[in-house]
Amino acid sequence: MTTSDSTAGILFTDQYQLTMAQTYFREGIHERPAQFDYTFRSYPDYGTHQAGYCVFAGLDPLLAWMETAHFGAAELELLASQTTSTGEPRFDRPFLDWLATAGHFRDIEVRAVAEGRVVHPLAPLAIITGPMAMGQILETSLLNHLNYPTLIATKASRVHEAARGRTVLEFGMRRGPAEGTNAGARAALIGGADFTSNVGVSHSVGVDPKGTHAHSMVQAFMALGQGELEAFRAFAACYPDDCILLVDTINTLESGVPNAITVFEELQANGHRPAGIRLDSGDLAYLSIQAAKQLDDAGFGDVAIVLSSNLDELAIWQILSQIEEEAPRYGVDPANLTSRLMYGVGTRLITSQGHAALDGVCKLVAIEDGGTWKPAIKVSDSPAKVPIPGLKQVWRVTDSRGYATADVVATAAEPRPGEQQLVLHHPIREGVQRTLEQAEVAEAEELLRPVFHNGTRLESPTIAEMRERRAADVGLLDPGVRRLVNPHFYHVSLTQEIKDLQRRLVEEARGG
Amino acid sequence: MTTSDSTAGILFTDQYQLTMAQTYFREGIHERPAQFDYTFRSYPDYGTHQAGYCVFAGLDPLLAWMETAHFGAAELELLASQTTSTGEPRFDRPFLDWLATAGHFRDIEVRAVAEGRVVHPLAPLAIITGPMAMGQILETSLLNHLNYPTLIATKASRVHEAARGRTVLEFGMRRGPAEGTNAGARAALIGGADFTSNVGVSHSVGVDPKGTHAHSMVQAFMALGQGELEAFRAFAACYPDDCILLVDTINTLESGVPNAITVFEELQANGHRPAGIRLDSGDLAYLSIQAAKQLDDAGFGDVAIVLSSNLDELAIWQILSQIEEEAPRYGVDPANLTSRLMYGVGTRLITSQGHAALDGVCKLVAIEDGGTWKPAIKVSDSPAKVPIPGLKQVWRVTDSRGYATADVVATAAEPRPGEQQLVLHHPIREGVQRTLEQAEVAEAEELLRPVFHNGTRLESPTIAEMRERRAADVGLLDPGVRRLVNPHFYHVSLTQEIKDLQRRLVEEARGG
Repeated sequence: MTTSDSTAGILFTDQYQLTMAQTYFREGIHERPAQFDYTFRSYPDYGTHQAGYCVFAGLDPLLAWMETAHFGAAELELLASQTTSTGEPRFDRPFLDWLATAGHFRDIEVRAVAEGRVVHPLAPLAIITGPMAMGQILETSLLNHLNYPTLIATKASRVHEAARGRTVLEFGMRRGPAEGTNAGARAALIGGADFTSNVGVSHSVGVDPKGTHAHSMVQAFMALGQGELEAFRAFAACYPDDCILLVDTINTLESGVPNAITVFEELQANGHRPAGIRLDSGDLAYLSIQAAKQLDDAGFGDVAIVLSSNLDELAIWQILSQIEEEAPRYGVDPANLTSRLMYGVGTRLITSQGHAALDGVCKLVAIEDGGTWKPAIKVSDSPAKVPIPGLKQVWRVTDSRGYATADVVATAAEPRPGEQQLVLHHPIREGVQRTLEQAEVAEAEELLRPVFHNGTRLESPTIAEMRERRAADVGLLDPGVRRLVNPHFYHVSLTQEIKDLQRRLVEEARGG
Repeated sequence: MTTSDSTAGILFTDQYQLTMAQTYFREGIHERPAQFDYTFRSYPDYGTHQAGYCVFAGLDPLLAWMETAHFGAAELELLASQTTSTGEPRFDRPFLDWLATAGHFRDIEVRAVAEGRVVHPLAPLAIITGPMAMGQILETSLLNHLNYPTLIATKASRVHEAARGRTVLEFGMRRGPAEGTNAGARAALIGGADFTSNVGVSHSVGVDPKGTHAHSMVQAFMALGQGELEAFRAFAACYPDDCILLVDTINTLESGVPNAITVFEELQANGHRPAGIRLDSGDLAYLSIQAAKQLDDAGFGDVAIVLSSNLDELAIWQILSQIEEEAPRYGVDPANLTSRLMYGVGTRLITSQGHAALDGVCKLVAIEDGGTWKPAIKVSDSPAKVPIPGLKQVWRVTDSRGYATADVVATAAEPRPGEQQLVLHHPIREGVQRTLEQAEVAEAEELLRPVFHNGTRLESPTIAEMRERRAADVGLLDPGVRRLVNPHFYHVSLTQEIKDLQRRLVEEARGG
């Protein structure tokens, strides 16, 4: 929001996409239909804990950008101003003229997994088909729009799992990555946050923004010769039915909670229902037990206790374990206490603490020649970096228990899994294969569907719809895959036909 | 760029800033002059290595945003649509009417350290003065605009140090944090990257965008029945004087480098000067030695070798060490080789690998009452979280060796360090103090200067100017502070007067 317009439109790309596009133009292959696949290579590994699944996010903002991004007069003028090291124009007039007419994404088709769905590595999540040069130019923005949101939606889903159904509030804006915090907040809402404090994003997606108050409000009253109690009263007078009081500005248990109780009693006397308190420092498990005890004793056994301060999925898990163990010693019912907790999750969610980038890639996999698709391949030292060539579908296979057991990458021409016995190959490790019998397949769903055609999104789901998809998909996972630490592996497999094609092309490339 | 307008303007803030502002409004203290300080608490700690200084970035974009952000009709309509849990409007009409007239930053004054300068924890980097409610609303956006860019500029400076003056290219867009990657690329340019691949940002700041080409270009030619050599030739035909060829699509030493040499010979025969090759996988140290050997033997002892693939300051340091040790064994001059290296640094720079968020805070420190400033304080369990109250200046003290030795936080009224003996206190640890003699102070510079007044930036420095500041400031640091691993501590100190004020207020707050 603070940079000039050149950063928002189609120049939101890497320079080499433009120089390559001009090379294709000079070679006359710029309008050849080409196919690029978006995949990620591995689940986030946070160090002490690892994701066993990801939640796909960022698709709708990408497609919205594709609807409008194009080379207009301003962009072409900037490109025309670029010069080579010998002072000549880097981009020549014929190429710029071509961009002026064809430099848009209206000829690009996108098939993709729906936003909000659970996804796994190495299976394509989006397949881009269209003119070679524009597909190339799209690559950077596509990666940028999908990688970070998928990373954050994944983290949010983990936090949501740790919170066991209690409200999760996204509070990361202040330390989030500049404007990227908006995409992060949106992704968090898809992945598992119930609300965000980010006002702009909340309004843009139609979710009520949430917050409490800051220490500064109490400090302001204190500086003016009043105290915490007066600050609480002023806030309660404004928001008598939504009053969550931050109790740790002076001393949580000796000042904050007693003052909050005083104000809650006043609210109640006036017919209002106090909403809660927030703890933002110290031992949150211990303090929440002691605060609950004071609140219970005062007859406020139902007000919420919002926890914040460096929370993530492991911190929440640890707090809940500690409460379960310790609360009874103080005469506090752990079930009641944990049922009234809410979690404000900031920095560690918006930055995906421990694993700051999803390793998604967008690779050329096929190019048309003489009316037929020619698979493209990169021979790499790293097997995980050898792309899966050609036109494909991804099938999600569900077993008779109702659990999703595998994502099967097949050629577009192969029949639905379950119609016959399938030999499945590990996507990386040579020789690792298994047989999927027909009886093991209760259901097989095509994950890739058309989402962008004729320059227009084919659908624009609401956040609520994306959340439903996520919840349904997470519910289909084996509990072992959902584990926060050391999760069980989900199967992503290649069919025999895909595997054979990959092998043949690698051999040809090495041989040639 | 993909979210609606509500995310870009003044609603780029946390909800609780708005609810607190309304509370101040109801209490009649919304226009009280108040002061907020921006500081960060600790240097980034990347785990195996730590920063000994930071580079301040993000200020100009923040001030540019402040020039235009305000509550217009659209924003007020959105706020008017918010309702409480009992269905009433959350924000009442008098408050919204006040926002309609006073909901801007034209009455806010900002004094700050100049962007690009080296900065240290706990000393204020920006001081905000203005109407209480608008200062509060500004907090989130200020933190967001400064924290992440400062983090990235800091990482870039470290990469720049590791690269020993050789060119650093910022390549992180594809895995950067959505739109935040723009702020990150700009910060990288300030902190130490020479160029970025981000086209939009390059044009917005007037730096030439840089790039090479991708594997996909070679793959496209291969899929069409041609090979790497033909791909290289096509690229070289387009960019004969800027031709950097990516040599690892098939086999770096057996295919990529030999083909590059063929093309370089053709370029040279036509009067052009080949620019370089890029290595993007494998053992970059070993491969660069072997590639240099082949290039040297072919008479291309001066073309650049661009390295990329998960680089950061430690990886670069390690590669250089390995080259110095190994190159002579293969008959390659390590000094020549390292002098022609360039570094494409992507994910690990744009995400500040290992430390994904700067812990910057913006705290209320004073509020006016009856014509005098009343210091505000938050009593915290954590000493580092006790803000330094009141009106302040930060002095950077340089010793007779020309090294910056301390940043001294003083009250605004205190004399310049060096004019008298000063007792300096550790900002956190009680009882840790030292005496700064007059003779130890060769120079004392005021770091905080007015940067925003009457709704307008007082200056808008170029990237080149900010880079010069950074280079000059880094040059003033003791080499121990610049160490990439386990750096020596730089002194940030409080004067006796500040320390006394802090102590008195904590006691008053605890007592009351």
